Amino acid sequence: MDLISGSADPHFQPVALEKAYRLLNHGPTVLVSAADGAERNVMAAAWACALDFSPPKVTVVLDKATRTRALVEASGRFALQLPTVPIAALAVELGTLSALQHPDKLARLGVQLFDAPGQQTPLVAGCAAWLECRLVPEPHNQQSYDLFIGEVTGAWADDRVFRDGHWHFETAPQALRTLHYVAGGHFYAIGEAIDVPVPKV
Amino acid sequence: MDLISGSADPHFQPVALEKAYRLLNHGPTVLVSAADGAERNVMAAAWACALDFSPPKVTVVLDKATRTRALVEASGRFALQLPTVPIAALAVELGTLSALQHPDKLARLGVQLFDAPGQQTPLVAGCAAWLECRLVPEPHNQQSYDLFIGEVTGAWADDRVFRDGHWHFETAPQALRTLHYVAGGHFYAIGEAIDVPVPKV
Repeated sequence: MDLISGSADPHFQPVALEKAYRLLNHGPTVLVSAADGAERNVMAAAWACALDFSPPKVTVVLDKATRTRALVEASGRFALQLPTVPIAALAVELGTLSALQHPDKLARLGVQLFDAPGQQTPLVAGCAAWLECRLVPEPHNQQSYDLFIGEVTGAWADDRVFRDGHWHFETAPQALRTLHYVAGGHFYAIGEAIDVPVPKV
Repeated sequence: MDLISGSADPHFQPVALEKAYRLLNHGPTVLVSAADGAERNVMAAAWACALDFSPPKVTVVLDKATRTRALVEASGRFALQLPTVPIAALAVELGTLSALQHPDKLARLGVQLFDAPGQQTPLVAGCAAWLECRLVPEPHNQQSYDLFIGEVTGAWADDRVFRDGHWHFETAPQALRTLHYVAGGHFYAIGEAIDVPVPKV
């Protein structure tokens, strides 16, 4: 199957901001993209998490040794996106090579970026969902814990796998399953649906 | 298969602290347990994440409306544990009923707690892994974002599914797969293993 390669793809659809937390709720590994002026970069992060429903907020841990962190601090913006099974190797490469040692990192890895309408941060093609964020500056968290907070200003998903506020992994193509990283090139894809009753309170 | 019901179970084995981050890296939903004096409580949380490798730290979002949060603040300790497929319904019940309205919540839901050697926080039986944590007080994060930081002081796993620092979902019983919550009683179990090369830098 074809993965989304740009915002003109008819499967690239907006997600209501009040449902944006659901894109991260199941704990996927993310790619973090950021830009400052003409410079753009992308890294991988397993440590990203939802923080609030409305307005939706997220946390992400960005090591001081990464170039992407510097771009986030300079621009006050970043995007999180959920890589899919076919780009697992790219996710590891993006998390292993640094633009500080390899200024041509994105070209070398063949990363395809695109812009979402009205947004300022480049997004990575081939993902299942995307969240653009405004940095909520918290210098103590950033300095002491490498912990960054963002408020989600735009969210999109591939509507074959997320639509009407719900994931549809059970009926979507296998290639759209999200990745959940452990270590050393070892991931798990998200698996089978499990539905249980919600008790009345 | 039998799930672990106490620390005397031979499958309940310690995890080296430097590998403890791997218990959370793939983004599982957790149960949060805490105790203060004779009072014990457990809630569910989808928003938990690793924060550091060594010493291992974690973040978890605890709403002000929960009784468990008050126990964490009073005792300065909490445990995160990873519920498994057979206790998905219990996880939703623990996340829906509050001890503030239902003081008999744990008994009513049949929650089985046990103590790990040398630790102060009760653990929940039937899980795949457990992390006991010391609260790292950060009043601004706690008040403004409901965001709590913990340093992991002890970690354990069911050695049928995590041993030698690695998850073994692909060979372990299906009942030991971790849960990844979306909303409304809808989870996904962790799925298939995906291994890719790590580039040399």
